[in-house]
Amino acid sequence: QIDSARLWGSIHETAQFGATAKGGVRRLTLSHEDKQVRDWFRKACEDAGLEVHVDALGSQFGLRKGRDMSKLPVGIGSHLDTQPTGGKYDGILGTLGALEVIRTLNDAGIETEAPICVVNWTNEEGSRFAPAMMASAAYVGDFTTDDILSRKDAEGTTVGQALDSIGYRGEKPVGFQKLGCFVELHIEQGPILEAEGKTIGVVDSGQGVLWYDGKISGFESHAGSTPMPLRRDALATLSEIVLAMESIAKKHGPNAVGTIGEAVIANPSRNVIPGEIAFTMDCRSADGAIMDALDRDLREAIAEIAARRKVEVKIDLVWRKPPTHFDPKLIAAVENAAKTLGYTSRRITSGAGHDACNLNTIMPAAMVFVPCKDGISHNELEDATQGDCAAGTNVLMHTVLAIAGV
Amino acid sequence: QIDSARLWGSIHETAQFGATAKGGVRRLTLSHEDKQVRDWFRKACEDAGLEVHVDALGSQFGLRKGRDMSKLPVGIGSHLDTQPTGGKYDGILGTLGALEVIRTLNDAGIETEAPICVVNWTNEEGSRFAPAMMASAAYVGDFTTDDILSRKDAEGTTVGQALDSIGYRGEKPVGFQKLGCFVELHIEQGPILEAEGKTIGVVDSGQGVLWYDGKISGFESHAGSTPMPLRRDALATLSEIVLAMESIAKKHGPNAVGTIGEAVIANPSRNVIPGEIAFTMDCRSADGAIMDALDRDLREAIAEIAARRKVEVKIDLVWRKPPTHFDPKLIAAVENAAKTLGYTSRRITSGAGHDACNLNTIMPAAMVFVPCKDGISHNELEDATQGDCAAGTNVLMHTVLAIAGV
Ligand SMILES: NC(=O)NCCC(=O)O
Ligand SMILES: NC(=O)NCCC(=O)O
Repeated sequence: QIDSARLWGSIHETAQFGATAKGGVRRLTLSHEDKQVRDWFRKACEDAGLEVHVDALGSQFGLRKGRDMSKLPVGIGSHLDTQPTGGKYDGILGTLGALEVIRTLNDAGIETEAPICVVNWTNEEGSRFAPAMMASAAYVGDFTTDDILSRKDAEGTTVGQALDSIGYRGEKPVGFQKLGCFVELHIEQGPILEAEGKTIGVVDSGQGVLWYDGKISGFESHAGSTPMPLRRDALATLSEIVLAMESIAKKHGPNAVGTIGEAVIANPSRNVIPGEIAFTMDCRSADGAIMDALDRDLREAIAEIAARRKVEVKIDLVWRKPPTHFDPKLIAAVENAAKTLGYTSRRITSGAGHDACNLNTIMPAAMVFVPCKDGISHNELEDATQGDCAAGTNVLMHTVLAIAGV
Repeated sequence: QIDSARLWGSIHETAQFGATAKGGVRRLTLSHEDKQVRDWFRKACEDAGLEVHVDALGSQFGLRKGRDMSKLPVGIGSHLDTQPTGGKYDGILGTLGALEVIRTLNDAGIETEAPICVVNWTNEEGSRFAPAMMASAAYVGDFTTDDILSRKDAEGTTVGQALDSIGYRGEKPVGFQKLGCFVELHIEQGPILEAEGKTIGVVDSGQGVLWYDGKISGFESHAGSTPMPLRRDALATLSEIVLAMESIAKKHGPNAVGTIGEAVIANPSRNVIPGEIAFTMDCRSADGAIMDALDRDLREAIAEIAARRKVEVKIDLVWRKPPTHFDPKLIAAVENAAKTLGYTSRRITSGAGHDACNLNTIMPAAMVFVPCKDGISHNELEDATQGDCAAGTNVLMHTVLAIAGV
């Protein structure tokens, strides 16, 4: 059994880095607050006897030797960055839970056959730089390191510049640390486990993701003197797109969601009809055929709205992540660990994307979910109980022991 | 007849202050560019022999003596500030046209019975500080000077601070310069004159205006893991409000318009359902009863949308300007001047608000419109012909001579 109080203490100690007034965390990737938590994490890993290295995209790897160093390490971990209005658990539980597993094995004097590697992946959230799960995507070869280094945030700062500004452009090439498999602990970020009173989610799959950049070009004109029928209003156009997205996602539901999270009017003024809007779209489903249908329906709806309103709408698919099907053997290992420990569990699909979904494309991967309050995540009110966090970390540890061998 | 080439030269010379790449002007009130055009205007007025004073809200007054100084001056002028994506004519034609009237009278050695006062009103546009036509509203007593001085822009800068930063907090109290009446020349900013092939719009009325500040409080949550039916999406709520506003304005049309010009998502992120949005609304009609109906229908629609979507929407009426009915004698003077000069004309309602609408509440006022290309205004592509600008300025001059007496 892991040390529940120690884990809880680490979670709340690191929550000070970027703490918000509403009790959440604002720790955008590669920000000053991210540097603070990375420094804390490196020291904690070193204190736990791990050999820590940083790769060219800033991901931190802490290696615990195994008896058989010819074996590839079992990877565990998650991420320490948050959303602009993020919580204390998303990513953090999985990273500090992994650290807690190491600390517990150290205390118990347990050596494993295969090594274990704790990882903090850079920019899982994707809110400062797109796409999400950026560093693990480069790790599995979906993008080159140079491509990722040149991605820009809204201010025009590149990933490379941001890494340099906090001193986290590591000396190791991306992929330097080979892993044999990857297991990630995370809060569910949805309402199912809580509603069903289950402690452990055995994650067998994950939704695919479509991310788009959009731009509407209507025509700025006077709010008072432009008759309604002559308008080419970019905001009215966006509004129709938002509602079309909502109804398309509902039509393909319950196994589909669609969101417009960002929309910025250029040169806004109270008495000017909006002429230009930049926006983003996020569509998901665990079913590849539904993803294709979402894309098709959305493009069709947007084309119709744009033609009718005589405005131009450009849509650019900037990321497509297919649905994930985790490794059956690892899924069974997680399920078995939960059962052995006496926790209630159920199979579950992840609504969110995770680094484990990327890693699963080149190695066996799996995930452990624990409930979060009211299913709320990406919100400062995100919450989870100490007992559930400890339960998930115990399942993580027993899964690792089963895979790594004692 | 005024000097058409000189007027055209002044318009294009001042268009350099805030010139945009697309051929428009970005000269927000009390900005650096506004200071540049104010300095130019003060010097031009002084060179034309006017005595120039600035009031506590930065409005510039240039007085030309009359034979009978016991008579109140005839006020003419408009504004030199622009929208963020503004044009070269909105306000500018009326201000530089007024200057051109003085220059022409000087050249012809014409003395008038009553004095004439050229005015450049501060913040007519209302895009940096609300409300629009701010300085003329204070002049007529709708707001106190202190109230206006404390109004803030989006960055939190007050009108007082902005005035000081460009050295235009004048020594004279607001209202120091009494006026006997006010005549304002302006581009139509709508499509009617051009469509009907008329040169002069004899403005007999102006739309009333309702300005609101709005705030939507939904709930931020994860774009991937929050099922569609559980969302409290602030952007989907705004979208319904935008489309409701559009259909309510159309329902009460053709004599009504409604616009949402500003909307800002707090802490936007691609994979977060928007939780909070601040927005503004602008509704207009020339009919007071329709204004009331717009307000009522809008509040009803918003209440229904908010309740159904389980979000909070707060609406705050920050400005209500009733419809304007200009002075019959002055309207007739404008009509007569157009006729005498041989220009085609028609009576017209102003879709936009103007300083003359404020002045009309305490003195006789009227306006002269000239066509603008495709009715486009509050747009960098705003355009008008040299001939129409000169025609309007001639009508302004002959109206002034008729009122002031030669
Ligand atoms: N787990 C999580 O919130 N990841 C962020 C990436 C996404 O799914 O949008
Ligand atoms: N004339 C003009 O564009 N005024 C701005 C105020 C308004 O009508 O919105």
